[in-house]
Amino acid sequence: MCDAAIALLAQDGPRGLSHLKVDRRAGVPDGTTSFYYRTRAALLRGVADQLIRYDAEAFTEAFKDAPTSSGEVIADVLARQILSIREEPQFSRTRARLELTMLATGDPDLAAGFEEMDVSFRALVGQFVLALQSGDVDPAILDEQATVLLAYLGGLIFAFANGSPQVMTRQDIARQMRAVIVGVAAERLGTH
Amino acid sequence: MCDAAIALLAQDGPRGLSHLKVDRRAGVPDGTTSFYYRTRAALLRGVADQLIRYDAEAFTEAFKDAPTSSGEVIADVLARQILSIREEPQFSRTRARLELTMLATGDPDLAAGFEEMDVSFRALVGQFVLALQSGDVDPAILDEQATVLLAYLGGLIFAFANGSPQVMTRQDIARQMRAVIVGVAAERLGTH
Repeated sequence: MCDAAIALLAQDGPRGLSHLKVDRRAGVPDGTTSFYYRTRAALLRGVADQLIRYDAEAFTEAFKDAPTSSGEVIADVLARQILSIREEPQFSRTRARLELTMLATGDPDLAAGFEEMDVSFRALVGQFVLALQSGDVDPAILDEQATVLLAYLGGLIFAFANGSPQVMTRQDIARQMRAVIVGVAAERLGTH
Repeated sequence: MCDAAIALLAQDGPRGLSHLKVDRRAGVPDGTTSFYYRTRAALLRGVADQLIRYDAEAFTEAFKDAPTSSGEVIADVLARQILSIREEPQFSRTRARLELTMLATGDPDLAAGFEEMDVSFRALVGQFVLALQSGDVDPAILDEQATVLLAYLGGLIFAFANGSPQVMTRQDIARQMRAVIVGVAAERLGTH
């Protein structure tokens, strides 16, 4: 049922989601979704929990060799995750996640579920930022590198989930991530 | 009526938008919105046109001294535009724009209206990328600088429109934009 709800959200947005439409899409008897999720809020929370489970699987995969992974390896993992958004099932899951993020702005209960995943994603990005640099780096610079990288990745995620036709390879994304990290350090240290 | 529709979309998403709700919010007699916008598609297109008019005003302002503007001036204009998303009326307009962007993925007619504005925004970003650099720069590098900068700005726009609590000043955003531009060039030229 949650996968049916994700598909509906991804395709038609929040207006496309109703208990009955989920029943029909999932091929279960009318009323089944209402039985398990009494309210719309409960259904949305169920979808959020399912999306979080999928994200958790992806992070387990991404972190499995950490913290020994090199910057190259983490760059490749991140770039592959971003590019996978262009294909199912990630396309629908990412669109559903963006729809729920927009809905969650006025709904702290829905927002809370995503916070843990945001923390995990930031941790992965933070590890990448560290792994790419040798020696001591000022924590303020590390923090800004992660911030700018997260904004860059957020922009790509939104564009890819909305069908951006931009041609991009794993190598392009990996290079652009390194560029952000290098650029923030250079700008802060005045070394350019 | 379009401003009422923008407020509804921003607050409750596409589900919050109906002809009658727009009538009530705009304080016009029931049926007025249906008279001017017969269908839901027509109403969404009307909202898109209004958002495009607002964007066009913002770009006229941003470009008014171009192409003589320095990189500093353009950085300041862009940083101010991004930061203004945290306040009304930009907050609601940006949320409505994001909602319509999500809807437009399956609706080429709705998507077409935004394309011109996307081209204008890319042009402003491209001017900024040029203005910050002296001498000849490889067109492939200019193109990648604009791409990465647009992704960074897209990520900030989405985060700010969804209530990100991140503390950021105009100076922070201007510095981070320069960092992206410097970093892409350094990574491509191997000068770091």
